[in-house]
Amino acid sequence: MPRLVLIRHGQSAWNLENRFTGWWDVTLTPQGEAEAKAAGELMAAKGLDFDRAFTSFQTRAIKTLNLALEAMGRLWLPVAKDWRLNERHYGGLTGLDKAETAAKHGDEQVKVWRRSFDTPPPPLEAGGPYDLAQDRRYDGIAIPATESLKDTIARVLPYWEEAIAPALLRDERVVISAHGNSLRALVKHLSAIPDDEITGLEIPTGQPIVYELDGELNALDRYYLSER
Amino acid sequence: MPRLVLIRHGQSAWNLENRFTGWWDVTLTPQGEAEAKAAGELMAAKGLDFDRAFTSFQTRAIKTLNLALEAMGRLWLPVAKDWRLNERHYGGLTGLDKAETAAKHGDEQVKVWRRSFDTPPPPLEAGGPYDLAQDRRYDGIAIPATESLKDTIARVLPYWEEAIAPALLRDERVVISAHGNSLRALVKHLSAIPDDEITGLEIPTGQPIVYELDGELNALDRYYLSER
Repeated sequence: MPRLVLIRHGQSAWNLENRFTGWWDVTLTPQGEAEAKAAGELMAAKGLDFDRAFTSFQTRAIKTLNLALEAMGRLWLPVAKDWRLNERHYGGLTGLDKAETAAKHGDEQVKVWRRSFDTPPPPLEAGGPYDLAQDRRYDGIAIPATESLKDTIARVLPYWEEAIAPALLRDERVVISAHGNSLRALVKHLSAIPDDEITGLEIPTGQPIVYELDGELNALDRYYLSER
Repeated sequence: MPRLVLIRHGQSAWNLENRFTGWWDVTLTPQGEAEAKAAGELMAAKGLDFDRAFTSFQTRAIKTLNLALEAMGRLWLPVAKDWRLNERHYGGLTGLDKAETAAKHGDEQVKVWRRSFDTPPPPLEAGGPYDLAQDRRYDGIAIPATESLKDTIARVLPYWEEAIAPALLRDERVVISAHGNSLRALVKHLSAIPDDEITGLEIPTGQPIVYELDGELNALDRYYLSER
């Protein structure tokens, strides 16, 4: 039966600074690197193994994957990288300190932006410091100006259907290193979590989440590897 | 016009211990990691950029690539890994100290094994400590028991023709992170170096070698990036 493992990247520089990150490409902190390595060591110790890995276009997820695979002696596995596994785009909140943003817009408004299923934050300022129009990794991609979680799900799931699900259906063992919201998209899909519940589901950093699936990729079980 | 960059992995644990390595999967030393990072910084400083990367199935080459790409802000590039870019298989010499081997077999014999174009070392002992038959990264691959440089070239060039040359002909900028002998295979091919000269060509670790190619992938120029 297919097995899928999801890992949210370890602590990033802006997790630590409590800033909205989204598509901005920050790297891991030393603690984030240690989390990634520990995730790989845990997977190896528990006897997990993989045939293929998927990750986003963002350094923090790619490094988390590389450090985990290295700890497993599996750096040689094929890795596919795709922008559709990127974090939710936080629009005009990108780069802002979360406390300052709450002080400016009010706690309630920030809570709506962070926790509403389908309300996106204001769009990112074109030409501003966090504009990615000149970042060639996104050449040919219609970069969003902002995203709700619903928008994020709408680009994650086509990639799931196109690339990840077929690998699982070929009986490949798959690991995905990605982000809080792109992983929420997958968990919502696999575990059939309602719109109003998924926004409250916290996905901890560096903790491998295991899905045991049936032959049609229905979830039979979902658990934190550290708890088994 | 297509541009190709070759990088030999940074210092490995067994480079440092002066042991024959071949297909045994040792990692980089801290110095090797620093060499890889410096290679990436040099490429970024010189304005080099890439669209695609190739590497072997061996940790030392993959890590070198990852560290160089990270230093360039290009960890998101597509990376293809293939066993045909692996180091020459050193057969029964794998794991042996080079000085001890010379003491045992004589300098002349070791020189023949290391520097002959078409004389392979004795085969690796099946079931011995360096047997890779149980290493699943090579499942489905006829693992050699030993290789001459000629044998190495005979599996590198089909991969060049099948995967790397087509990327260059699509006008993609390519970087290859590999090994002393798999890179000798490519340099021999691109620069038309005779059999009796290629074995003496030293490829330094962590030094990007740039090939400027014409539209039919003939070499117009080859140079160390550090010298331009």
